[in-house]
Parts: sequence; C-alpha cells; structure tokens
Amino acid sequence: MTEAPEDAGYAKGRARRARIVRTAFEAFSAHGYRGASLVQIAADSGVSRAGLVHYFPTKESLLAAVLEERDRVDSEQFFAGVTAPVDGLDLLARFARLVEHNASNRGIVSLFAALSVEASDPSHPAHDYIATRYETLRRHLGAAIADLGARGLLRDDVEVEGLAAELIATVDGLQVQWLVAPESVDMAAQFRRRLAALVTVDLG
Amino acid sequence: MTEAPEDAGYAKGRARRARIVRTAFEAFSAHGYRGASLVQIAADSGVSRAGLVHYFPTKESLLAAVLEERDRVDSEQFFAGVTAPVDGLDLLARFARLVEHNASNRGIVSLFAALSVEASDPSHPAHDYIATRYETLRRHLGAAIADLGARGLLRDDVEVEGLAAELIATVDGLQVQWLVAPESVDMAAQFRRRLAALVTVDLG
Repeated sequence: MTEAPEDAGYAKGRARRARIVRTAFEAFSAHGYRGASLVQIAADSGVSRAGLVHYFPTKESLLAAVLEERDRVDSEQFFAGVTAPVDGLDLLARFARLVEHNASNRGIVSLFAALSVEASDPSHPAHDYIATRYETLRRHLGAAIADLGARGLLRDDVEVEGLAAELIATVDGLQVQWLVAPESVDMAAQFRRRLAALVTVDLG
Repeated sequence: MTEAPEDAGYAKGRARRARIVRTAFEAFSAHGYRGASLVQIAADSGVSRAGLVHYFPTKESLLAAVLEERDRVDSEQFFAGVTAPVDGLDLLARFARLVEHNASNRGIVSLFAALSVEASDPSHPAHDYIATRYETLRRHLGAAIADLGARGLLRDDVEVEGLAAELIATVDGLQVQWLVAPESVDMAAQFRRRLAALVTVDLG
C-alpha cells in the first residue's frame, strides 16, 4: 500500500502527467516513436528528465499512455453516443469517417502502423495493448456486421466469416501504402468503396 | 571510374557478398531488422566487421540487399513462368499461395511489415525500394484484374477501381493481425475468401 497523496499535490501530479502525455503525443506524431526525443519531451512539458522518469520509467510506458489517450480521443470524436446493441450501419459510417480523419493525420497513422508491427513481439511493452485493441476492433465490427445481417442489409453474396478482421486489415494496409506514397492511394475513398460493396443501402 | 577487378578476386568478392546477404537474410528473419546484430552477421558470414562494412557501409544497405534477395526468391518460387500478358487467374492463385507460404515464415513477414512502415519516411534508405515494390505489385495485380474483366471472369458487382491496392492492403493488414495474434486470424484462408468473392470460377 502506498500512502494516500494529499489532494492538491495529487491534482498537480495528474495535471503534470497529462501535460507530458499531450506533449509526447505531439512529439510521436511529428517524429514517430523512435524519432521522438525524451529529453525534448521533458523540456516541452516543463519537467526535468528525472521528473519524466518518475511518471514514465521507460519510453515504452510513455508510449502506452499516449496510445490510451489517442483511443480516448478517437472514442470521443467518432464513437460518442454508440450504444449497445450496436447499430451496424452507424458504426460502419463512423469507421469510414475515422479513416477520412486519419488521412490528414500522418504522424499518428505512422505511429500506430509502426507500433502494431513492433509490438507484435510478445515481449514488447505495448503487446497486450495492441492485441487487445485488435480484439476489441474485431468484436465491435463483428457485432456491426451481425446487426446488418440480422436487419437484412448485407448483400446476398457477402461472406461474413472473418469479415471484421478483413475490413480492419484493409484499413491498416491502405494506410501503409498511403504512408509510402500518399498520392498513390485514396484510402478513405477506397475503404468507402469496400464498405459500399457490402451493404444494400447508402452509408451516408 | 574504378579499375576492373581481376576475375578471380571479383568472383570471390561476389561469393562473399552473397554469403553475407544470405546470413543477414536469416538473421533479419529470426531477430527482425533492429534485433539483428551486424557483429554476429559478420561472424556468421566469416568476415571481419571491416569486411562487412566494405560490402555494406550501413545496416540499411545490407537490408536493401536482403530485400532484393527476398524478392528474387519469391519470384522464382511463386512467379516463375509468369509471362506477359498476365493470366489473371493464374496470378491470383500464385498470390494466394504466397500468402500461405508466408504463414510459416513469421520472421520475414515481420521484417517486411516493419520495414514498409519504417521506410515510408522519404529519407529512409529503403524508401525507393518499398515505394517501387508497391507500385509494381499494384501494376501486376491491376493487370491480372483487367485480364479477368476482359475474360468475363469477374463477378458483376465487383468494383475494380483501386482493387489492386485494396487486395495488397488486405494481405498486409491480415499479416499484422496474424503477427500480433497468430491464432486470431487465418490469413491465407481469409485472403482466399476475399479472392473467391471476386471471380466466377474456382481459383484452385
């Protein structure tokens, strides 16, 4: 057991931690994970290197906090008001909008793409985060597809087995080609075409 | 201009270079690009560190040679006998077999996945290699799809615009999920389902 911190000090600590995460988010987005400098992040957050280490003992632990923050922002911006049971049509439309949003956020797309591969190594500190993220995405999209099927909104020839994983894969893969050559792929339009081919109604 | 090397010395140098590339290929596959040690690669190739640097001044240049070698092996194994004009059905079947083959080659899949993202940075030494690789893949698959269309083998509702990029994306993305959690995704089966949904005939 640790002692309960005093309220004022605790609030100050939380604010400082949040500031570091925000700064790191920007640094990782601008320079990538490997390119970002902890020394610079500490300076830009107004803390010493020791202060940074107090909150985040490793660069990886700072990354994990950044990713959680990114998920929170995505959730607020794109998945606010999503209730169970999932409205499949609504969720696909939100997913398409998220891909559109990503097309103007190269840094964060690059960070996620690089990290997903890096963290596929089970010994990587962000492995569980990434594995859980994919599981959750597959589950949500799977529920959306099941909802569409139950409502008769899927085209007759759509094979639903593994479709959730495949749609996520499509987005991930399009992002890689877009990162390599932004002019070569319109990832948002391409993903919309893929979705449009699945359903009998307009996704909006 | 450099002086023409003596034949015997030249052949020896080529053999040594090929041995280094082979060893590096194995090391990158087993440990990933970042995890592989140049000191170990030099030792396993029977050359000194200085000898290694003579052929490959940087780790990146060694990587580029490994990737060219990997493409050559893939080409021989999966694309031998492919002639222009492309037989679309044959090319899709070969592509599906390559994905199956990859399912037992985690190291090289991981290496390619990591590098594609890393090298999306235009200043990365493998950027041109990766960009050209995607362009070539899109062009070949695009030709395969055009051939299928011309032969009336595509299903009526297939939208061909961007389809080549999307199929490559599907494979790339499935590989990432498979790397993160091999049991979660049967990438070869999933990709075959995707292909089967495009054509009116059996891909074999």
